[in-house]
Amino acid sequence: MRLRHKPWATDFIAENPHFVVPNPEECQGNWSKDVFHNDNPIYIEVGTGKGSFVTGMGKQHPDVNFLGVELYPSVIISALQRLVDEPQDNVKLLNQNAEDVTKFFAENEVSRVYLNFSDPWPKKRHEKRRLTYKAFLDLYKQILIPNGEIHFKTDNQQLFEYSLESFSRYGMIVKNVSLDLHNSDIEGNVMTEYEEKFSNNGNRIYRCEAQFRE
Amino acid sequence: MRLRHKPWATDFIAENPHFVVPNPEECQGNWSKDVFHNDNPIYIEVGTGKGSFVTGMGKQHPDVNFLGVELYPSVIISALQRLVDEPQDNVKLLNQNAEDVTKFFAENEVSRVYLNFSDPWPKKRHEKRRLTYKAFLDLYKQILIPNGEIHFKTDNQQLFEYSLESFSRYGMIVKNVSLDLHNSDIEGNVMTEYEEKFSNNGNRIYRCEAQFRE
Repeated sequence: MRLRHKPWATDFIAENPHFVVPNPEECQGNWSKDVFHNDNPIYIEVGTGKGSFVTGMGKQHPDVNFLGVELYPSVIISALQRLVDEPQDNVKLLNQNAEDVTKFFAENEVSRVYLNFSDPWPKKRHEKRRLTYKAFLDLYKQILIPNGEIHFKTDNQQLFEYSLESFSRYGMIVKNVSLDLHNSDIEGNVMTEYEEKFSNNGNRIYRCEAQFRE
Repeated sequence: MRLRHKPWATDFIAENPHFVVPNPEECQGNWSKDVFHNDNPIYIEVGTGKGSFVTGMGKQHPDVNFLGVELYPSVIISALQRLVDEPQDNVKLLNQNAEDVTKFFAENEVSRVYLNFSDPWPKKRHEKRRLTYKAFLDLYKQILIPNGEIHFKTDNQQLFEYSLESFSRYGMIVKNVSLDLHNSDIEGNVMTEYEEKFSNNGNRIYRCEAQFRE
């Protein structure tokens, strides 16, 4: 997406530490106790964008804690605005780089990882930046519970093809594959902004779950 | 496909033992020496239908031996007719059941398995009949070389979704996934009769390769 420079974004983020956790590395291993104050499972969305997925899921699943990780201040402020307008105790945001997730979470601290409409990085030389590249799978595995899952959806055919291959090379089990999500019988799908717009144009959404083996 | 009873089919097959091998269990372990008289790799197509794939591949790859396995006499005769009209030394047919492949081939005797437009058996209670069900993967693994591959294509979205899951549950590596084969840059695709007809209607063809791990 186009990133406009919004100089007030960092101020807006700093003013809302209750929603955008300012020093997540200090929470490592203690999210349940210190941040959410309950033992509900923690699901993270890597690349949370404008936050409609993470906030929608938060409402649909009050017994789950959601954390949306987004690098760009100019984007995450839209997610933050949603939380300011309609506070949700079980949804927090991290204005951080996905590469650093192992600094923020301890082993087994995360119960599920969501990847939604990640940047496809179509050029072969940018493969390492794709969020389903093996180095990222290593990171997710470190913080996930045993047999933890990645739930992945995208409109990008090439990224989906690549990711199926990447998951299987990693030895993961691929489940609930849908090659046309909006014409399937999977229930409870929470749409991202991007998904809604894209799907309205009649294009396919691809989805699967990938589970780590021990 | 609709199967018409053709009483002359079994006679036609029996009259052409050079093309439809009559007692394949006697060839087990000796296909290279006794049947093809060379050491070229052996690729089999399970469910070869009317044979346009196996004969087309035979022409495209003279340095490979192809065996098409097809249960129905009324169908395999179309493949046989192709070979009668235009003999190919590197293509043979087996009028046999896919469940019996381990009786016809020894360990490591087959270098690749092709599955093209297999019957989708859409009902859950028929899962065991799908040619990508785990019991069939067991059979293919027994006769394939180490790290042998299945090359699979279908127009059936549900069968493709199922098969991706089945391959990954089996621990196979999925490669060269194409979710729209005829709009991809994969070269040398030999079409089946069914594929040509289906694709002309503007529908997608799905394809992947699945490799066994040791």
